[in-house]
Amino acid sequence: MAPLAPRLVVPIDVKKHPWQQKVPLHNRWHPDIPPVADVTEGEFFRIEMVDWSGGRVKDDNSADDMKSMNFTIAHYLSGPLRIVDSEGIPASPGDLLAVEICNLGPLPGDEWGYTAILERENGGGFLTDHFPSARKAIWYFEGIYAYSPQIPGVRFPGLTHPGVVGTAPSVELLNIWNEREKRLAETNQETLKLCEVLHQRPVVHLPTPENSLLGKIQEGTAEWHKIANEAARTIPGRENGGNCDIKNLSRGSKVYLPVFVEGANLSTGDMHFSQGDGEISLCGAIEMSGFLELKCEIIRGGMKEYLTPVGPTPLHVNPIFKIGPVEPRFSEWLVFEGISVDESGKQHFLDASVAYKRAVLNAIEYLSRFGYSKEQAYLLLSCCPCEGRISGIVDSPNAVTTLAIPTAIFDQDIKPKRLSGRPLPGPKLRRLPDLLSCSNNGHLPATQGQSGTRAP
Amino acid sequence: MAPLAPRLVVPIDVKKHPWQQKVPLHNRWHPDIPPVADVTEGEFFRIEMVDWSGGRVKDDNSADDMKSMNFTIAHYLSGPLRIVDSEGIPASPGDLLAVEICNLGPLPGDEWGYTAILERENGGGFLTDHFPSARKAIWYFEGIYAYSPQIPGVRFPGLTHPGVVGTAPSVELLNIWNEREKRLAETNQETLKLCEVLHQRPVVHLPTPENSLLGKIQEGTAEWHKIANEAARTIPGRENGGNCDIKNLSRGSKVYLPVFVEGANLSTGDMHFSQGDGEISLCGAIEMSGFLELKCEIIRGGMKEYLTPVGPTPLHVNPIFKIGPVEPRFSEWLVFEGISVDESGKQHFLDASVAYKRAVLNAIEYLSRFGYSKEQAYLLLSCCPCEGRISGIVDSPNAVTTLAIPTAIFDQDIKPKRLSGRPLPGPKLRRLPDLLSCSNNGHLPATQGQSGTRAP
Amino acid sequence: MAPLAPRLVVPIDVKKHPWQQKVPLHNRWHPDIPPVADVTEGEFFRIEMVDWSGGRVKDDNSADDMKSMNFTIAHYLSGPLRIVDSEGIPASPGDLLAVEICNLGPLPGDEWGYTAILERENGGGFLTDHFPSARKAIWYFEGIYAYSPQIPGVRFPGLTHPGVVGTAPSVELLNIWNEREKRLAETNQETLKLCEVLHQRPVVHLPTPENSLLGKIQEGTAEWHKIANEAARTIPGRENGGNCDIKNLSRGSKVYLPVFVEGANLSTGDMHFSQGDGEISLCGAIEMSGFLELKCEIIRGGMKEYLTPVGPTPLHVNPIFKIGPVEPRFSEWLVFEGISVDESGKQHFLDASVAYKRAVLNAIEYLSRFGYSKEQAYLLLSCCPCEGRISGIVDSPNAVTTLAIPTAIFDQDIKPKRLSGRPLPGPKLRRLPDLLSCSNNGHLPATQGQSGTRAP
Amino acid sequence: MAPLAPRLVVPIDVKKHPWQQKVPLHNRWHPDIPPVADVTEGEFFRIEMVDWSGGRVKDDNSADDMKSMNFTIAHYLSGPLRIVDSEGIPASPGDLLAVEICNLGPLPGDEWGYTAILERENGGGFLTDHFPSARKAIWYFEGIYAYSPQIPGVRFPGLTHPGVVGTAPSVELLNIWNEREKRLAETNQETLKLCEVLHQRPVVHLPTPENSLLGKIQEGTAEWHKIANEAARTIPGRENGGNCDIKNLSRGSKVYLPVFVEGANLSTGDMHFSQGDGEISLCGAIEMSGFLELKCEIIRGGMKEYLTPVGPTPLHVNPIFKIGPVEPRFSEWLVFEGISVDESGKQHFLDASVAYKRAVLNAIEYLSRFGYSKEQAYLLLSCCPCEGRISGIVDSPNAVTTLAIPTAIFDQDIKPKRLSGRPLPGPKLRRLPDLLSCSNNGHLPATQGQSGTRAP
Repeated sequence: MAPLAPRLVVPIDVKKHPWQQKVPLHNRWHPDIPPVADVTEGEFFRIEMVDWSGGRVKDDNSADDMKSMNFTIAHYLSGPLRIVDSEGIPASPGDLLAVEICNLGPLPGDEWGYTAILERENGGGFLTDHFPSARKAIWYFEGIYAYSPQIPGVRFPGLTHPGVVGTAPSVELLNIWNEREKRLAETNQETLKLCEVLHQRPVVHLPTPENSLLGKIQEGTAEWHKIANEAARTIPGRENGGNCDIKNLSRGSKVYLPVFVEGANLSTGDMHFSQGDGEISLCGAIEMSGFLELKCEIIRGGMKEYLTPVGPTPLHVNPIFKIGPVEPRFSEWLVFEGISVDESGKQHFLDASVAYKRAVLNAIEYLSRFGYSKEQAYLLLSCCPCEGRISGIVDSPNAVTTLAIPTAIFDQDIKPKRLSGRPLPGPKLRRLPDLLSCSNNGHLPATQGQSGTRAP
Repeated sequence: MAPLAPRLVVPIDVKKHPWQQKVPLHNRWHPDIPPVADVTEGEFFRIEMVDWSGGRVKDDNSADDMKSMNFTIAHYLSGPLRIVDSEGIPASPGDLLAVEICNLGPLPGDEWGYTAILERENGGGFLTDHFPSARKAIWYFEGIYAYSPQIPGVRFPGLTHPGVVGTAPSVELLNIWNEREKRLAETNQETLKLCEVLHQRPVVHLPTPENSLLGKIQEGTAEWHKIANEAARTIPGRENGGNCDIKNLSRGSKVYLPVFVEGANLSTGDMHFSQGDGEISLCGAIEMSGFLELKCEIIRGGMKEYLTPVGPTPLHVNPIFKIGPVEPRFSEWLVFEGISVDESGKQHFLDASVAYKRAVLNAIEYLSRFGYSKEQAYLLLSCCPCEGRISGIVDSPNAVTTLAIPTAIFDQDIKPKRLSGRPLPGPKLRRLPDLLSCSNNGHLPATQGQSGTRAP
Repeated sequence: MAPLAPRLVVPIDVKKHPWQQKVPLHNRWHPDIPPVADVTEGEFFRIEMVDWSGGRVKDDNSADDMKSMNFTIAHYLSGPLRIVDSEGIPASPGDLLAVEICNLGPLPGDEWGYTAILERENGGGFLTDHFPSARKAIWYFEGIYAYSPQIPGVRFPGLTHPGVVGTAPSVELLNIWNEREKRLAETNQETLKLCEVLHQRPVVHLPTPENSLLGKIQEGTAEWHKIANEAARTIPGRENGGNCDIKNLSRGSKVYLPVFVEGANLSTGDMHFSQGDGEISLCGAIEMSGFLELKCEIIRGGMKEYLTPVGPTPLHVNPIFKIGPVEPRFSEWLVFEGISVDESGKQHFLDASVAYKRAVLNAIEYLSRFGYSKEQAYLLLSCCPCEGRISGIVDSPNAVTTLAIPTAIFDQDIKPKRLSGRPLPGPKLRRLPDLLSCSNNGHLPATQGQSGTRAP
Repeated sequence: MAPLAPRLVVPIDVKKHPWQQKVPLHNRWHPDIPPVADVTEGEFFRIEMVDWSGGRVKDDNSADDMKSMNFTIAHYLSGPLRIVDSEGIPASPGDLLAVEICNLGPLPGDEWGYTAILERENGGGFLTDHFPSARKAIWYFEGIYAYSPQIPGVRFPGLTHPGVVGTAPSVELLNIWNEREKRLAETNQETLKLCEVLHQRPVVHLPTPENSLLGKIQEGTAEWHKIANEAARTIPGRENGGNCDIKNLSRGSKVYLPVFVEGANLSTGDMHFSQGDGEISLCGAIEMSGFLELKCEIIRGGMKEYLTPVGPTPLHVNPIFKIGPVEPRFSEWLVFEGISVDESGKQHFLDASVAYKRAVLNAIEYLSRFGYSKEQAYLLLSCCPCEGRISGIVDSPNAVTTLAIPTAIFDQDIKPKRLSGRPLPGPKLRRLPDLLSCSNNGHLPATQGQSGTRAP
């Protein structure tokens, strides 16, 4: 007889704060954050997780919580888990850790989520120059489906996934991260030129002890201070996986993670009920608490065998994924295109980020024809199962990207159609209510000189 | 009784040169290139097309033709077609032209294609710094399947599509194109900074009369000279559609094109048997001659109704697409990830182009573990039905992109697996033969200082 | 704020017997079994269910429990639920009840199931003449996947569904059922001729008070005796839905049930982790306890509007279903064909049951070439997501049916391939261990004279 | 260099009669019909085919041709082809012939088809008692799509396939066929009891020299007389494949056929643009002329290795299929259920044919609510890509079958929905025009006493 349930390795009580959980959480990447449990390869186990914000975002009627969000805290992660083989020998640097996602979902009794626009001056987002003010939508779950009172007329099945899955970095890898990101921060002016059309700020999130939560390491101790000053922030995805936000990493998927420290030190967090490619509004998935049911396998020596470094050191690698067999099926997609010409009409050279910004803006404008506010459309494209593709990256000077939206998520036909004398193709009534805003209004001016003829 | 076959509007004889075809072709975008035929909306019609090169690339044993390719000629297009409604009134500026692709394929009796690497000094490609020398693979078709003697062990069904579908630009739109692209050329040094890791050159292709083919306009006439000096090159996709290289635009798809001139002046070309997202090697699809069977519908006033300009003029719009119901189904994908850290280890700010380059390099290195040369892998990822996604574009400083490869196209299991003492996971024998190269060897030095520890 | 979890309407404690549950269960269909709860349309609610046997089948090492199974008990159902609209008015006869399956799964902590062959003299099955002895396989669940120690080398995602969803019959409909089934029992000899190749017995299950469980009705009361003598057994699917065993009725599906009594009196049960079309071994799905999360909608007058009776009364209707968007995707299927010629070589006239028997036998023989015992193959085809189709039903005298098996569920390549001198195409080693059998051996003689040259 | 087109092995000129074709056709199965060509395994070749009727059904305004159809002629087949290996050694009895369908389609310039109801007294069909009179619908093709002026509001992509693919029987197998079918004819009265609800007649089609076409064998010769008196009719599918009408046998599929005679003698015919499972109206697919592009592989000894006989001789086997990767994707299906209770209310024992008849009748009645005549619905379900499943075959006494219809083929929403005071859910206007009927009216009385309360 096999056990009739996965072993619960990290339990969560959503009524408690992140720092009050029975098995301690962490919100930084560092090799010296000690494992909270051992897991044997082949074992079927369960991890529970708070939402990325650790409960700071509420199911209420205002976006105030988003406006004042403190970003020195980002993702609260469950783990690290030390992975050992059937003889008790831990995963070693150079191994590949295959993690199968057997199941996942929201925590029972906490079946809701949120999607939000962050304030331009506090977090931003892909279109922060167009949508600079904090906004929020609440989503409720009915099994596989989500709906939001703030984005009416839409209901879709979730392609649920963890935003963050990663192993601990080694000291050497951590140093590489900190140095390259510091260099970017120091060349900020150059950077502004490099991606002048992306207003997302700050450009990097460097280590800071402020609000560091380090698992079993007691705050205030010398060890805590040392680690907190070195540990990498969790916001970007990096060589260890981390915040990759890959929306197809759902039930039945497998991720092959490089192992940098003994035991691998696997951590997970940032559960998403659903996300669109790009997660464009930053807090852009349907963010929730949740659980993962996992199985691990250690592929000894697999990092060398399967991951070739592309960069100056053997640590410059990235994880590999295998997509599972149970994604929602959609048979019809409406696709918006963008080219690397920005909103001011300026031509950029094969810049896929600029081109994707155009594709997203085109889709937002289009959806606004069907009764949605542009902010509603922005949040919807952040969290619905839309696909963002790099379609052409060689035909100088234009990169071509596409954004594909499954038409079945809407309660109306959003395809272009012949107008036949009628003034409007569909329900042009405004879809109400609109998103939640801030109590003190929260209107920032849109960024000057960027959005061309069509102010948002 | 309906007609029992589509009306053949543009016939092609592949034994003749592009300039010898019965219905004349063109290779520039300009409002004054006259229509070659009228088509009525609702009519089911057929256009035949030469391959993009107009027969300059041969089914032979050398890549010499790629090395010496003259890029003042790019795509030979069939059309323009003047679209009229059932009462004979042509499509007008401001209308939307819905073009349904009812069927498409290679020309009977010419069922082959090619994929190639262009010389770094003559065309380049997304990884031209890694793979600077001309190479070529020939593909033969067996119905829905393609196989190449130069890339053994791979066979896949085509997601066949036209690389180019577009309407003619108006004079005003043409001027916008020429001005913004000229400006980019003039700020070349800045551009190098802007996308310093993309070595694809030249940065733009400005108008030139050299090798202009302008349909019914006789070469050498005053009209020819005027148009040839103004007409836009066909290489990049732009507001009129054009060379969008959207690999899912296959059987059953619909494209909604803005109409800028009376009659719409629809042109098509550059048939691809199959292409991966990004078409990374530039001549990266399985390029072929072919046919399209189409139906058009005019949505009067649809441009205003459905396409909101994002830019300084009402012409700054992009087409919309609807994907059809008969794409090949793959249930298992292996996914490679890239972040915006370049091969030298330098951190870039949310640069999706850099991140995609990393994802592609990671996939090439991986496939080289299964017996392929890196150049074989590069061409394979250019033309097989792989998907390139912008997965995360907001988590500063890293953009995260993914490249998903359907595992079923290989004759071996390419998934990572436990090695169990054996030295190698799969057939590590070199897959031979390799790609076609140039008679005079054609080896250029790889770009200095870019590829880190792993020279190609 | 919406409730953050579905309302639990029927809780189950799997450690208790069916007749000890807090909300009483029932195992018969009758209009007078009183509702256990009210549910309002639009409400999101949860029902928990014991497995069909109510815990009589154990996770142990023997098939003894299957051999001695008492069939006067079949499915223990949860409900009936009285469905009311937002104003409290119950569903009425003539309405259509739309039930959306928002989510479902095994009960947490009880994540296992079983598939079994019943004894020929006690229940039988589609191939009971070939496989007359009781056998059992245990399945354990790892999230979306199931595996069985008794059927090695197979693992597949579940297309989980309830075997039984139904509304209560009216008195009139109940009488129709009892009369027509009684008539069939009385003409048993004729029946044997009618389907002489199907050895499944008994031919019908008529009402019997033995082991009747009737919800809130106290056993032994006069009311209990009356109902128990009239109530329909739950084994066959009928006009009210019931035991339809439609394997695609999974997450996101909707079933439109006719309403025959006030309140509809909805009952559910017989959860299946997975099932093949036909559920051929009778106890043929992966049987489990489980939960359903549902939403109901009342379509007033919908039965008349949408369900046309085909038969002598307005009650001769059947439910309609809508299949959901999240079924497992398989891209490759191996398909076995059967025609209506039985195992003795006798030709039957367009008999789809005979043809399907042949298709199943062909598939079992084929799988036995890859190391499986025929009984293992029989159980696997009962419970894996295979599709049984009526391909041709008009080409006299042969009905043609097909059985399609997704190849991805096996850990070996089961496709036919060239043998190239080797004696065997795949691992011809016997896959061990085999199914669980009975302690007292349990071998019955196979039925005489039916199975032709290939005794099982 | 590979050949740039498949070798055309059997050309067809649709302007000529079947007996006038350059490469002679045949319409019987017999080992002595000589091959018309040799094909080498691995070779990519093309066969063209007339429609099953050989041009007897016209694109005109009447169903007269269906009423007078002579069934001694059924399918005109192209072939037989003698398959040899690369050394010229032909396929031998006991081998398995793997035939890959690389491509297929209608013949260029003949892009239309038809679906018809045959007269009850001349061919019949699955519902001939309900729809006894000849009717016809013409379908025109627009690339992958078909539409019919006689069934308005429907357009769908074809899952195109050959109805007939088979190898020649050996003398021994032919004798088995003739004897078992003769026996069925002789026990006709018993048969009527066996499947008393299926009115399709005649019950078998025995050999007859009338209208026999035997390829290269000259009509009237002694050889012709001998063969014509023995040769099997092509109507039913049998051990050699033949008229299996498996609708998923489309592009990219593979069929593994048993070889009974030297060279295999492969024949094909009866192209279908599309068909529903069951092909219920007999002439029920969208029948057309067409082409197949094939590749063959000989698996030496494969019949013994992979096909286990189920019956009294080693010849009692059936082919195996592998389904291809490019079927049309539909994400939403409406499903109708049927149980084995016939239209008079009589209970049958696990009879899947009766149950499927109920499912089909339920679907026809339902579709008639959306403006279609019942005969239109009957033909539509014969030819659209609907799926017929055996869902439950063990729950005595009811077999449960389902018929699933993809909703996307309709131009209206056919799902049940709340009526909200309005009298009708959708466009209840009659969809006109209706099917083509016979010039002399052609109304037969529906069969007495079968259809219960709802005469068609």
